[in-house]
Amino acid sequence: MKHNDIERIEPSNWWVGFKNSELQLLVKHPMIGTAVPEINYLGVTIKKVHKGDSDNYLFIDLYIDKTTRVGEFNIVFKFDNGDVIEQTYELKSRIKPAEDYIGFDSSDVIYLITPDRFSNGNPFNDIHENLLEKTIDRADNYARHGGDIQGIINHLDYIESMGFTAIWSCPVLTNNMPSGSYHGYAMTDFYEMDPRFGTLNDYLELAQKTKEKGIKLIMDQVANHCGLEHWWMKELPFHDWVNYQEDYEENRDSWDKKAIITSNHRRTSNQDIYSSKKDKEEMNDGWFMSGMPDLNQRNPFMAKYLIQNSIWWIETAGLGGIRQDTYPYSDKEFMSEWAGAIMEQYPNFSIVGEEWSYNPLIIGYWQQGAINRDGYKSNLKSPMDFPMQRQIVNALNEPEGWDTGLVKMYEGLANDFHYATPKDIMIFPDNHDMSRIYTQLKEDLVNTKTAVGYILALPRIPQIYYGTEILMNDSASPGDHGLIRTDFPGGWEGDPVNAFTGEGLNDAQIDMQGFVKQILLYRKNSKAIHKGKTIHFAPFNSTYLLFRIFEDETVVVIINKNVEPITINLKHFDEIGLHGKSLKNIVTSDIFLWEEDMLLNSRGIIMLTTCL
Amino acid sequence: MKHNDIERIEPSNWWVGFKNSELQLLVKHPMIGTAVPEINYLGVTIKKVHKGDSDNYLFIDLYIDKTTRVGEFNIVFKFDNGDVIEQTYELKSRIKPAEDYIGFDSSDVIYLITPDRFSNGNPFNDIHENLLEKTIDRADNYARHGGDIQGIINHLDYIESMGFTAIWSCPVLTNNMPSGSYHGYAMTDFYEMDPRFGTLNDYLELAQKTKEKGIKLIMDQVANHCGLEHWWMKELPFHDWVNYQEDYEENRDSWDKKAIITSNHRRTSNQDIYSSKKDKEEMNDGWFMSGMPDLNQRNPFMAKYLIQNSIWWIETAGLGGIRQDTYPYSDKEFMSEWAGAIMEQYPNFSIVGEEWSYNPLIIGYWQQGAINRDGYKSNLKSPMDFPMQRQIVNALNEPEGWDTGLVKMYEGLANDFHYATPKDIMIFPDNHDMSRIYTQLKEDLVNTKTAVGYILALPRIPQIYYGTEILMNDSASPGDHGLIRTDFPGGWEGDPVNAFTGEGLNDAQIDMQGFVKQILLYRKNSKAIHKGKTIHFAPFNSTYLLFRIFEDETVVVIINKNVEPITINLKHFDEIGLHGKSLKNIVTSDIFLWEEDMLLNSRGIIMLTTCL
Repeated sequence: MKHNDIERIEPSNWWVGFKNSELQLLVKHPMIGTAVPEINYLGVTIKKVHKGDSDNYLFIDLYIDKTTRVGEFNIVFKFDNGDVIEQTYELKSRIKPAEDYIGFDSSDVIYLITPDRFSNGNPFNDIHENLLEKTIDRADNYARHGGDIQGIINHLDYIESMGFTAIWSCPVLTNNMPSGSYHGYAMTDFYEMDPRFGTLNDYLELAQKTKEKGIKLIMDQVANHCGLEHWWMKELPFHDWVNYQEDYEENRDSWDKKAIITSNHRRTSNQDIYSSKKDKEEMNDGWFMSGMPDLNQRNPFMAKYLIQNSIWWIETAGLGGIRQDTYPYSDKEFMSEWAGAIMEQYPNFSIVGEEWSYNPLIIGYWQQGAINRDGYKSNLKSPMDFPMQRQIVNALNEPEGWDTGLVKMYEGLANDFHYATPKDIMIFPDNHDMSRIYTQLKEDLVNTKTAVGYILALPRIPQIYYGTEILMNDSASPGDHGLIRTDFPGGWEGDPVNAFTGEGLNDAQIDMQGFVKQILLYRKNSKAIHKGKTIHFAPFNSTYLLFRIFEDETVVVIINKNVEPITINLKHFDEIGLHGKSLKNIVTSDIFLWEEDMLLNSRGIIMLTTCL
Repeated sequence: MKHNDIERIEPSNWWVGFKNSELQLLVKHPMIGTAVPEINYLGVTIKKVHKGDSDNYLFIDLYIDKTTRVGEFNIVFKFDNGDVIEQTYELKSRIKPAEDYIGFDSSDVIYLITPDRFSNGNPFNDIHENLLEKTIDRADNYARHGGDIQGIINHLDYIESMGFTAIWSCPVLTNNMPSGSYHGYAMTDFYEMDPRFGTLNDYLELAQKTKEKGIKLIMDQVANHCGLEHWWMKELPFHDWVNYQEDYEENRDSWDKKAIITSNHRRTSNQDIYSSKKDKEEMNDGWFMSGMPDLNQRNPFMAKYLIQNSIWWIETAGLGGIRQDTYPYSDKEFMSEWAGAIMEQYPNFSIVGEEWSYNPLIIGYWQQGAINRDGYKSNLKSPMDFPMQRQIVNALNEPEGWDTGLVKMYEGLANDFHYATPKDIMIFPDNHDMSRIYTQLKEDLVNTKTAVGYILALPRIPQIYYGTEILMNDSASPGDHGLIRTDFPGGWEGDPVNAFTGEGLNDAQIDMQGFVKQILLYRKNSKAIHKGKTIHFAPFNSTYLLFRIFEDETVVVIINKNVEPITINLKHFDEIGLHGKSLKNIVTSDIFLWEEDMLLNSRGIIMLTTCL
């Protein structure tokens, strides 16, 4: 008989057969801290029971033997007064071997989606009566617009046909916040789909359908903070569950934002050998914002909670990756432990972490394999390439000069000598927090194509933000977050423009969309781009050439900033060995015979391949 | 009997008692390649004789036993036809143990001098009839002005009284070039003082007098290139003595600058894992300028020649350091060998190498102790901190903002986590190739003092360019090399202004000179600055504080960009432990009691010390 006496038990189920046989259950229930739990199920042992600082929490350490049969059992809680309550708990069998959870890599191109703004597939879940933010208003860029998981499911054909091989959706877990909940980064429940995005079943359907198409699903997770309305903020299990908890608890009833110390956001204190203790503490323990309590991962129960939560989602949805928010804000030893624990369970998995720094030293520090003088061992395979993104934009926006223009791309990429594994770094023309690339490049279509084409040819994992393929922009108010996250046209019934079908797009948008598609479709099977050798030549005469080479396949990227026609002498590139070969333009399919020289008629990017 | 039959033998003498008992002599004389040399001197053995590609050169490998007596001996050259010529060669005793050649370090402050522009101590050597550039014209910034070694000797008291502890003079070896010879970087003889700067004896007098004052003498050397009028360019010993030698020899008689490949100056190709062979070759083998042939250090005779030349100068002048020009332009394996050979002979010596890069990754790469992924082991103790120099200038020129202004200093210094030994890096407000700091800082005296004061407090080896202490500037034409290297006022008889005595300086200049002097005199004995712990705090409210701490001595640097008075809460810095202590202003000697807060009345830098 199934029992459901307990107010909350997390994780709500588990699996048999992990390398790590331990599981720690968080149990929340009135006075549960005074009860003694018992389990009578072959293979499952209670190793230890921990009381929280609050009597309403209990943490149970289980040992689950690898031979344990899958199935349900009851946990019996016995109180001093003789009362007994029971909770049924399920151990499932794992759907596939751990090695089969294949993460994203440089053979992928990731489509980043802000789910509230991509497509409203289910208009009936837009507003939820039990949640605090009840309005929907497409005219307000900071309100919810109704986009959801069903909207993504509905347009998987588009995503696939464009040539994307992975989807990273911004968070879809419950954000029961009074406002601004659309972005998803203030989670109030780490185990629940936000009903306005859909149900767990919707998410599992997305997982299943992406899998069928060979598209990897990347979940956006946040270990650093939760939303102020997170259920546990009403009664915290330990005195140190969140940082600056005392300040918070003193001011909870008359919430005064000034009562809380927010992060100084000086992230370099993570590396800085001269950093004051004060700065380090403010950086790591200060709340990300006054509405986002900072989780204390030095509390071992919190640490376990977060690790198990990530594993629960990987196993439940068969994820193809995790994107971890605000990576350097959490305790860095914990982040190493967290990533290490996941990678130990899933050796072929991938995690990308957000460190928004333009400094390659900082980006390199966080990557697995970095040789750090402070001995820090990161288990993060993929940091994000903000430095190179900026170099590319500067390279294209600046006039050519000795140390301006294309040399910024060239020298930016030269920094790869510092990275443990450059090809595991994620690169992007823009993302959900940055001005759109078309805006960054002053609405210059040629430069926008150049930036995106170059990014797609680099030894990197490229990520494209939804709508960048149709030149979505925030030029009306550059950098405005709400505007950056504009609705994808055609995602809502009755939209006058439909980018899925092409209906109503202007010429430039059609041009860009086709350009991205042609490159993505080529890239999908290009070993040269996935894992080829890279050779580039110092820019000269406002031109810059990059080659990717794998066996018989050579991909040539030619970037030209000359407005007037210019002829380049191909002898300069003799070491590549292309003389006398025919190459095909990846976008136009034109054939070019590589001999003495090449006439470049106009500014822009040309991408050629030896594979005809 | 002393013989002097040979046209040229280099090095012209050697010493007994080096760790390395080998010596290779370059002998130049008509048809000497056809002769057989003999030596009859106990302890000296001819190990091997090498002919050059030219018959007029011979290279002799000697083994000099450690027990060899110092003295002179003859080298007898016997020709097939029975002719014999003789050359007397001297082995000297070393004046002091190798360990006693103490290089500069972070306890020093280096005064950089362009000798042609500092002081004309000997008006009789200004023009030399055997040299190509015969004019002297103080009105022409690119002509010679007559400054010399005697001029430096004459003003050692000034240099000492200012608190400098080391002198780096730009090159003083012969530059027999038709024009632009004043700067010294186109050497036409690696063993000869340029007579317009003085004699070898003058240089040895400088070495002796600096030594008496405890001032270290740093010689500026160039391993990458020579001047086009170098004596060996008329007849080169090997076909590969300089790079692109064939192109040069074909065009020697009608010298066409276009005939020679000059460096592409894309120095990142030294590190870049994607660099084309073409770029690497052009970078390292291309001539620095068409008038500066690129020495081929892959020729083992050239390599030995350069190493022995450096050792000859260290031993002859008792140097306190070498500054190596254009470090990344030479063959990098050779540079490692060169620096390693010197450091092996003189374990406490110091070498600073010029890599003009604003990228800490590149600077870090060249430092001894760097953990480079390509396995490159540098033996260079001191690279130059161009990145931090730029950050400081930007920090002061920019308005304060979240990621502008003082944060540039703070985050720039935070990059120290990357360096093997930050304190061995040389830092400078400006140098002989850069716009003067007063010009870079838009002639803002307060900011100029701030930049210089901050630099002098960093865990670095500071270098100050002559005249920066009196606000010399190139504001009339920023970056103009000739203007940067303006004559030091008072260095020439009859100068209307004399910065040595202070006569005629304006108030700002007197202020600056006094400011620099006070800090230098304090710094001279400050263990906190020489080797103390560094702690700094993230800038806030347009203020930034840095602390240097060693035992009881704490130095506090307070930088304030507020024009209006502001009070800072000292509680923020509690971890430093200064509460209740009295501190002295290093410049004004005012006493400040460190308690609750501090009122900052005006923009600028304040430097305090706990040493009263």
